[in-house]
Amino acid sequence: MKKDIGAGKLALYPTPAVVVGAMVDGKPNWLLVAHVGIVTHSKLMLSMFGKHFTNAGVRETGVLSVNVVDEALLPKADFVGSVSGAKQDKSDAFEWHVGENGAPVIDEAPLYMECRVEQTVEVDGFDNFVCSIDATCVEEEYLDEKGKVDYGKLKPVLFEMPGYTYLRCGERIGRCLKLDGE
Amino acid sequence: MKKDIGAGKLALYPTPAVVVGAMVDGKPNWLLVAHVGIVTHSKLMLSMFGKHFTNAGVRETGVLSVNVVDEALLPKADFVGSVSGAKQDKSDAFEWHVGENGAPVIDEAPLYMECRVEQTVEVDGFDNFVCSIDATCVEEEYLDEKGKVDYGKLKPVLFEMPGYTYLRCGERIGRCLKLDGE
Repeated sequence: MKKDIGAGKLALYPTPAVVVGAMVDGKPNWLLVAHVGIVTHSKLMLSMFGKHFTNAGVRETGVLSVNVVDEALLPKADFVGSVSGAKQDKSDAFEWHVGENGAPVIDEAPLYMECRVEQTVEVDGFDNFVCSIDATCVEEEYLDEKGKVDYGKLKPVLFEMPGYTYLRCGERIGRCLKLDGE
Repeated sequence: MKKDIGAGKLALYPTPAVVVGAMVDGKPNWLLVAHVGIVTHSKLMLSMFGKHFTNAGVRETGVLSVNVVDEALLPKADFVGSVSGAKQDKSDAFEWHVGENGAPVIDEAPLYMECRVEQTVEVDGFDNFVCSIDATCVEEEYLDEKGKVDYGKLKPVLFEMPGYTYLRCGERIGRCLKLDGE
């Protein structure tokens, strides 16, 4: 028996929790974001409230990093989600370096993407940054024999808003279009 | 040691696999979509290649359903992802009814959202439908004592593109901002 829990009740979870990095006034700032999406087959989207400190840096530099969070990185990622860079300098929350495209990236992240803002879609005060990907760097242990990311090994931390919790990425069910075996 | 696997290598996975339902020429059609996203705190986005049969119905009617897939529903969901509605009538792939807003919804889905297209952002031939949510209906067994969706019980099937596989949603790690207990 289904219950209608109302309008505007977003239930498209869980989603990967990522740390977005951007230079703000010449220093790196970090923001935990899980309202993310995929656009086309090669771009991503980040939905970030326009007043976030990080957004100003993204708008100014046009580049950012998307750092995937695993369980080892979660305590630090959770921390940067708790306090605004406008109130507290978060530049040293992680070991980091400047990526090839100029965005700060997190050394400890199992995988990061260096991204470039292609388009910003404003909706209800949120900047929805549609980004192309200049480079994707991943710890070699998480690549399979074909050189692709193995999500059976790299288990990104997931987020869901209604309960405000983090979830583990589970095991593989099967291959698309070959569920009954290959 | 990290390896740069190149530009345009999208790695923002896994994401929830959902079945999008829309009326096309007066009949329901179904499309498996995992290139989805969250916009603001209450809207969602679906990135669907413009030539999909379903897109024509979405553009014409302005409404669609987003049906969350659990493991019981996965074989049928995987099937509708394998064949175009332009070639094969998929209207009876699921038990369904017409939702309050006119979009077809799947009876067997553990949760569905009736959505309304607010804006369409075209990127590289893809329609990125930004949708508001008219209603969210969920099987009561998946609601917690506060009436919110319990993702510890409702485990949406997840998708990842590099390995082209489905993954299980895993268990809860902890609450945001309270990782060390409440």
